Amino acid sequence: MSHPFVQVRGAREHNLRRVDVDLPRDALVVFTGVSGSGKSSLAFGTLYAEAQRRYFESVAPYARRLLNQVGAPAVDEITGLPPAVALEQRRSAPTARSSVGTVTAVSNSLRMLFSRAGRYPAGAERLDSDSFSPNTAAGACPTCHGLGRIHEVSEESLVPDPSLSIRQGAIAAWPGAWQGKNLRDILAALGHDIDRPWRELPAADRQWILFTDEQPVVTVHPEREAHRIHRPYQGTYMSARRYVLHTFADSKSAGLRRRVSRFLVSSDCPVCGGRRLRPEALAVTFAGMDIAAAAALPLSELSALLRPFTGQNADESPAAALSQDLVGRIEVLTELGLGYLSTDRPTPSLSSGELQRLRLATQLRSGLFGVVYVLDEPSAGLHPADTEALMTVLRRLKESGNSLFLVEHDMAIAARADWIVDVGPAAGEHGGRVLYSGPPDGLTAVPESATRRYLLAEDGAAPDGEAREACEARKTREARETHESREPHQARTPSGTLRLRDVTLHNLRGLDAELPLGVFTAVTGVSGSGKSSLLAVVAAAAEGVADGGGTDDAAADEGDGDETAAVPEQAQRFRGTVEGLEAVDRLVRVDQKPIGRTPRSNLATYTGLFDAVRKAFAATDEARARGYTAGRFSFNVASGRCPTCQGEGFIAVELLFLPGTYSPCPDCKGARYNPETLEISYRGATIAEVLDLTVDAAAEFLADLPAAARGLTALQQVGLGYLRLGQPATELSGGEAQRIKLASELQRSRRGHTLYLLDEPSTGLHPADTEVLMEQLHRLVAAGSTVIVVEHDMAVAAGADHVVDLGPGGGAEGGRVVAAGTPAAVASAPGSVTGPYLARALGRVRRS
Amino acid sequence: MSHPFVQVRGAREHNLRRVDVDLPRDALVVFTGVSGSGKSSLAFGTLYAEAQRRYFESVAPYARRLLNQVGAPAVDEITGLPPAVALEQRRSAPTARSSVGTVTAVSNSLRMLFSRAGRYPAGAERLDSDSFSPNTAAGACPTCHGLGRIHEVSEESLVPDPSLSIRQGAIAAWPGAWQGKNLRDILAALGHDIDRPWRELPAADRQWILFTDEQPVVTVHPEREAHRIHRPYQGTYMSARRYVLHTFADSKSAGLRRRVSRFLVSSDCPVCGGRRLRPEALAVTFAGMDIAAAAALPLSELSALLRPFTGQNADESPAAALSQDLVGRIEVLTELGLGYLSTDRPTPSLSSGELQRLRLATQLRSGLFGVVYVLDEPSAGLHPADTEALMTVLRRLKESGNSLFLVEHDMAIAARADWIVDVGPAAGEHGGRVLYSGPPDGLTAVPESATRRYLLAEDGAAPDGEAREACEARKTREARETHESREPHQARTPSGTLRLRDVTLHNLRGLDAELPLGVFTAVTGVSGSGKSSLLAVVAAAAEGVADGGGTDDAAADEGDGDETAAVPEQAQRFRGTVEGLEAVDRLVRVDQKPIGRTPRSNLATYTGLFDAVRKAFAATDEARARGYTAGRFSFNVASGRCPTCQGEGFIAVELLFLPGTYSPCPDCKGARYNPETLEISYRGATIAEVLDLTVDAAAEFLADLPAAARGLTALQQVGLGYLRLGQPATELSGGEAQRIKLASELQRSRRGHTLYLLDEPSTGLHPADTEVLMEQLHRLVAAGSTVIVVEHDMAVAAGADHVVDLGPGGGAEGGRVVAAGTPAAVASAPGSVTGPYLARALGRVRRS
Ligand SMILES: Nc1ncnc2c1ncn2[C@@H]1O[C@H](COP(=O)(O)OP(=O)(O)O)[C@@H](O)[C@H]1O
Ligand SMILES: Nc1ncnc2c1ncn2[C@@H]1O[C@H](COP(=O)(O)OP(=O)(O)O)[C@@H](O)[C@H]1O
Ligand SMILES: Nc1ncnc2c1ncn2[C@@H]1O[C@H](COP(=O)(O)OP(=O)(O)O)[C@@H](O)[C@H]1O
Ligand SMILES: Nc1ncnc2c1ncn2[C@@H]1O[C@H](COP(=O)(O)OP(=O)(O)O)[C@@H](O)[C@H]1O
Ligand SMILES: [Zn+2]
Ligand SMILES: [Zn+2]
Ligand SMILES: [Zn+2]
Ligand SMILES: [Zn+2]
Repeated sequence: MSHPFVQVRGAREHNLRRVDVDLPRDALVVFTGVSGSGKSSLAFGTLYAEAQRRYFESVAPYARRLLNQVGAPAVDEITGLPPAVALEQRRSAPTARSSVGTVTAVSNSLRMLFSRAGRYPAGAERLDSDSFSPNTAAGACPTCHGLGRIHEVSEESLVPDPSLSIRQGAIAAWPGAWQGKNLRDILAALGHDIDRPWRELPAADRQWILFTDEQPVVTVHPEREAHRIHRPYQGTYMSARRYVLHTFADSKSAGLRRRVSRFLVSSDCPVCGGRRLRPEALAVTFAGMDIAAAAALPLSELSALLRPFTGQNADESPAAALSQDLVGRIEVLTELGLGYLSTDRPTPSLSSGELQRLRLATQLRSGLFGVVYVLDEPSAGLHPADTEALMTVLRRLKESGNSLFLVEHDMAIAARADWIVDVGPAAGEHGGRVLYSGPPDGLTAVPESATRRYLLAEDGAAPDGEAREACEARKTREARETHESREPHQARTPSGTLRLRDVTLHNLRGLDAELPLGVFTAVTGVSGSGKSSLLAVVAAAAEGVADGGGTDDAAADEGDGDETAAVPEQAQRFRGTVEGLEAVDRLVRVDQKPIGRTPRSNLATYTGLFDAVRKAFAATDEARARGYTAGRFSFNVASGRCPTCQGEGFIAVELLFLPGTYSPCPDCKGARYNPETLEISYRGATIAEVLDLTVDAAAEFLADLPAAARGLTALQQVGLGYLRLGQPATELSGGEAQRIKLASELQRSRRGHTLYLLDEPSTGLHPADTEVLMEQLHRLVAAGSTVIVVEHDMAVAAGADHVVDLGPGGGAEGGRVVAAGTPAAVASAPGSVTGPYLARALGRVRRS
Repeated sequence: MSHPFVQVRGAREHNLRRVDVDLPRDALVVFTGVSGSGKSSLAFGTLYAEAQRRYFESVAPYARRLLNQVGAPAVDEITGLPPAVALEQRRSAPTARSSVGTVTAVSNSLRMLFSRAGRYPAGAERLDSDSFSPNTAAGACPTCHGLGRIHEVSEESLVPDPSLSIRQGAIAAWPGAWQGKNLRDILAALGHDIDRPWRELPAADRQWILFTDEQPVVTVHPEREAHRIHRPYQGTYMSARRYVLHTFADSKSAGLRRRVSRFLVSSDCPVCGGRRLRPEALAVTFAGMDIAAAAALPLSELSALLRPFTGQNADESPAAALSQDLVGRIEVLTELGLGYLSTDRPTPSLSSGELQRLRLATQLRSGLFGVVYVLDEPSAGLHPADTEALMTVLRRLKESGNSLFLVEHDMAIAARADWIVDVGPAAGEHGGRVLYSGPPDGLTAVPESATRRYLLAEDGAAPDGEAREACEARKTREARETHESREPHQARTPSGTLRLRDVTLHNLRGLDAELPLGVFTAVTGVSGSGKSSLLAVVAAAAEGVADGGGTDDAAADEGDGDETAAVPEQAQRFRGTVEGLEAVDRLVRVDQKPIGRTPRSNLATYTGLFDAVRKAFAATDEARARGYTAGRFSFNVASGRCPTCQGEGFIAVELLFLPGTYSPCPDCKGARYNPETLEISYRGATIAEVLDLTVDAAAEFLADLPAAARGLTALQQVGLGYLRLGQPATELSGGEAQRIKLASELQRSRRGHTLYLLDEPSTGLHPADTEVLMEQLHRLVAAGSTVIVVEHDMAVAAGADHVVDLGPGGGAEGGRVVAAGTPAAVASAPGSVTGPYLARALGRVRRS
């Protein structure tokens, strides 16, 4: 048959410079290189995009016009390319109703199990599997519509201050302006005393005023400003409850909905008790549990529950057949370190790494053959101890007859690949070349590669592994010559301590822990050990919300306006206390949530940089002559933007199979502005051209515009020099979003003691980029602040002042502090899974 | 790596009986077996469906719920199955606006060529490629909206009989009933003489009455039946033109639109001259032609036109790059015998075989690798001389790294496969087993196989080929023992002759030909030689439409109500005369068009069989007690059908990538009726159960219901015993549709001389089934009628009384009678491409 290689010729997507490269099929290929070097442009932008295009053009020829709009990747030729499946991190916005169970198809099997093998109450009809899904009409609890919670009002929520009279505004939930006065006057006309304090009104009246469903009509003689004429009119009364619920459910105004949502109290649905299903379905049990209880079990426990049933003959017993299916599915998930998740866990609460591994494990049972899986850093969120399990899954996918293309920064994985494609040497226009393509060992011969020294330093196996020990000696010697990490520094002295006392959240149960202030602390531990939960406790406490209220990431809220009703968010309520926070002036949480949910947000808008740029444009002579203000240069304002795409630069193309596919706007060709706006130039560039600059280029172009220059420098410092200013938020990875947030924090002038909380800041970063980022974080500590990071990268932990290692396992087997102290102390702590990996990282630092 | 086989275990779709079979990948696999044996159920229903499901479940996990609705094929396990692409014949309803150019992407390249390398008038702006497409707003002629034709009225069309007065109904286009009288009375009120013959009215008045855009309002004193009271009223006039055009464009009633369409005359758009593009685009030329002229060229001529430009350096000249692309695309099409088609030929005018080969050739340039192509009888419509070209294309697809699974009846192709899967032994429940799976030679050892003797009889190579001559001797001997065809019969004596004189249509130019009456005639010749055109001439002449009017297939019109406006169809106007038709009493054209376009049509409704069944249900005691009439048992009537799916049994699932995907109705589970209707049973079966019977089973069940039995026997006689009565029209192949039409013709009581015209009736039929069908057709001839078939199956031609061989080539190189006479005479005619193949077929018959 044909050549066992995918042959790429003349790839020019983004920064790729006419790349020619051959990639083996049926192999594990890892793409390495610093951020922005072009790895994704090759793996996703070229190979995956072209594979998709070819397949869909053949399967759905009627969609060809749409595909043409999206456009083919810039490449001369690709041969030997099978259809592809991508497991990306970016752009995989999970829907609110999806859960661990729906992503993995465990829900489906579980519903079939209850439908066919459940124990029904005597005389009950057998239900079909849809009746066990809260997302179907057949299954949803009729009271809460399958949401599990209901939103209601209470006297307390509607009347926060009962010492006020109605005239003084006791009923806070009432609308403002004329409507509020109208309701007040109607009550007066109905004979209620609107000048007595609320709490002194008779209980029955209070009840009626707030909750009645009646809508009496009365003649109102309005009593208002004396100098105006007010004619009597017919007024219709509406209780506060009715007003709030109707507005929340039906109003088209997001602002109004948000306002009334403040008067809603949400609570578990009284009918299903939060279990979201109709009573008939909840009456069915299996192994003594209803389906909601089964779905709430960690997967590992669910598997243990079902195992006894797998022994029977599957042909005869549906319980056996379905249990076997479920146990099989869960096994892979457990192997990938996800056994601590429950079936009903909503996907939006998962990290992108967890979500990707869920999808990966699910693929093992897809039966696909002969496809190329293209993966985006599957190691994200994975403790080094779990790398072996990931490798096992990848190998099994390969053995099932598939090819694997990984964009990956974890050198432990790169060292074990069949083939490495190293892209570089640097980012953006300084990258885009393939420096090396071949088995990992050969990279030693490429001095130009930024990856080389990190790969050399990688032993290539877990501490207790045996692989590749032959070349160990050579590598260690070479590593010593090339690896030039920071010296292991003296641990700093804390300026204070945060004391967590008897803290309970998720799997943290009555935890006592100490976190030093004024230093850099790394929280380590396997997936699900409780690291994020620990951070959540600190954040909630810092925001003063122990035992109630809500913690929220201020930064993430700055994104685009929310279009869905703001249901009062479930707070990360923890039990326990956190002492020592009085030393902290400010909390900054830098997470990986997107900086915006539409292509209208980008790094320029997010960081405020764009304001400076627009002012500069508005200040040009031509703009002033035409009367163009800074607003004209915003693509969110009608006057200046392209009317066809309304300033998005793209139009959505309806391809169900390629969600969120955009094609360039046919009118402005992606420029986003109308022709008149583009007639204004600043230093020879239009506003569209400025948005198209990379951060690095813009730093030069706008060097003397202080308001812009500061932000640009900060972006460069966190390794984002390769991003274009106008790159839409939807195209940024979680790691990029996190670093943008960090940069916009770095550019602020800082006073006082700030507590920075970061969740795995190394995600998406080449080891060389991680080093740059860590320098920035250490600078913050040097300036007197505290940094606490959750990290899996042992180089980061080795460079910390303090390490808190959680564990020993995930879920119920975690949630305890296994070891805490200097990196060296944790490295040698008995019982810590992290210890040996940390020891090796420390060894590497010392060796160098 | 893994086993080079796709392994199927426990396939149970439709009639498959727990089939276990291994199919080699990267090979050409042919599925053989009689119609209804289960070939498609295995190749399409199981392998293709499962491959699609797996791939889409991985690519679009959010679509999983939809995929679940569609359901997985019934099979225990399939391993080693790559993603698949189907090139089906059924269900591939081409849209009216698609053309040879859009299917093959030639249009796209041609538009780019004109956009980038065309010669523009001095000063003209360069246009983008969309401006050369009549299907875009940018390109469409503004007058005819890109349709090329405009629909207008004329005095002749509105007033067919000018000797009538307005009162006598001269203006035939006027609406009936009150509205017509109203308009008449308005004209009288306006002072027109409504009692003079139309032709005697002044020209200016006639013009105004028919064409004015004015809508004067006058007081009408209605003059009607004397005994009624009529009050004066204000009436608004509307000219006949205005009424017809408005009704045609805007009426929601299909009936009304159809009625007014009779008064429309369509003609080429005066602005674009039928070229569909706006003037600016038509002003651009390449090689001296505008794009409409280039698109009207046969592909082979277009290629010749472009070849001179391919010599230049593609990097420097867009003309060269695009010409190279086009010439490359066209080359494959020409190889597959499709060079006679023009780019602008609309796909609905293509046979399903031509369309499939267009798609197949297009795939050669798709760059797909590692997929399984599943094909439905690619030989359909292909002359044996073109089989080698088809094999070449298939081999090239295989060499590009793909697997090919063909459902195929052509033994010349089966004999050349790498692997044969023979399904059988008979149809429906008597089939569904894999009788043999292995290289073709091995089938000799399977006496049970219906395919065996035909494959043995096949020499395995073209007459002048060299392949497989080694085993020729053995095969011939065995063939002699097993092949038991009808004796070559004595040619019948014609009862008369049809004489075509100086006939011109498509590539028939001034043709003289004779077709004997009262015998069985086969028209042969390579694709595009003019066979269908010849049949069209005979049909048009028989319907008395030489030089005008329209020919239409009466049978095809009996399908479901047409929902689109009935634009007066382009008639097959030919020039010339056909003599001898006076001997013919009736014309019956049996084509391969669908018997209906929605799942509401099925063979039971089409053949009228269902009426008998519904009457039987209505006559049961229970039905009479409840007052259920026959209408109640129609799924097109609201009272009896399931309200959820409105009697379709299915609901459409919105999966863009799987067009027209249906999932069983959640309420009736596909039964189509409401529960009350299903309470009535006839001989123990509900109406839904009867619809689910196969023709064979129904023939037993309804044996004593004469009205049903006759139709069922006819269906069995044409080899359709395996179809279920309720099988939706949309799931039937072109061949099946044709045989259903034939059966409904066979069941009629016949008197007089009927002229039957059939286009390749062997399509979709196993050679064994073809023999059965031919017996039926010969019975018609024996009863005194005439049968003329277009055929590529040489066994059919060999069994004919008379053969007319057209050619010698396709398109401009065809259109002539190369040879005519008895099969033996044509077999030895010099210059006939068909001759040698016919000679071999005759040899086989004689040998046996
Ligand atoms: N959609 C895009 N449009 C234009 N340039 C892009 C786009 N996406 C990425 N780039 C640019 O291409 C270069 C390589 O980026 P990328 O392939 O994402 O690198 P990596 O995957 O190695 O981090 C960078 O300069 C980046 O800014
Ligand atoms: N939002 C949540 N709702 C319910 N359980 C959660 C939630 N977040 C985490 N958990 C559970 O808490 C435990 C610790 O999870 P987490 O703190 O995310 O671990 P880590 O950050 O170490 O991976 C796990 O058992 C996890 O399933
Ligand atoms: N959609 C369907 N539902 C139920 N039965 C079907 C369907 N399609 C085909 N069948 C039945 O399955 C059997 C095999 O049909 P098919 O696979 O189409 O045969 P072949 O391809 O060999 O002609 C026949 O009895 C046919 O009636
Ligand atoms: N509806 C049509 N419009 C234009 N050209 C046609 C049409 N149908 C057939 N032709 C042309 O007439 C010639 C003969 O075609 P056809 O009669 O279909 O051949 P055959 O039936 O032998 O394959 C071909 O060149 C074909 O392109
Ligand atoms: Zn509920
Ligand atoms: Zn635009
Ligand atoms: Zn026109
Ligand atoms: Zn239904």
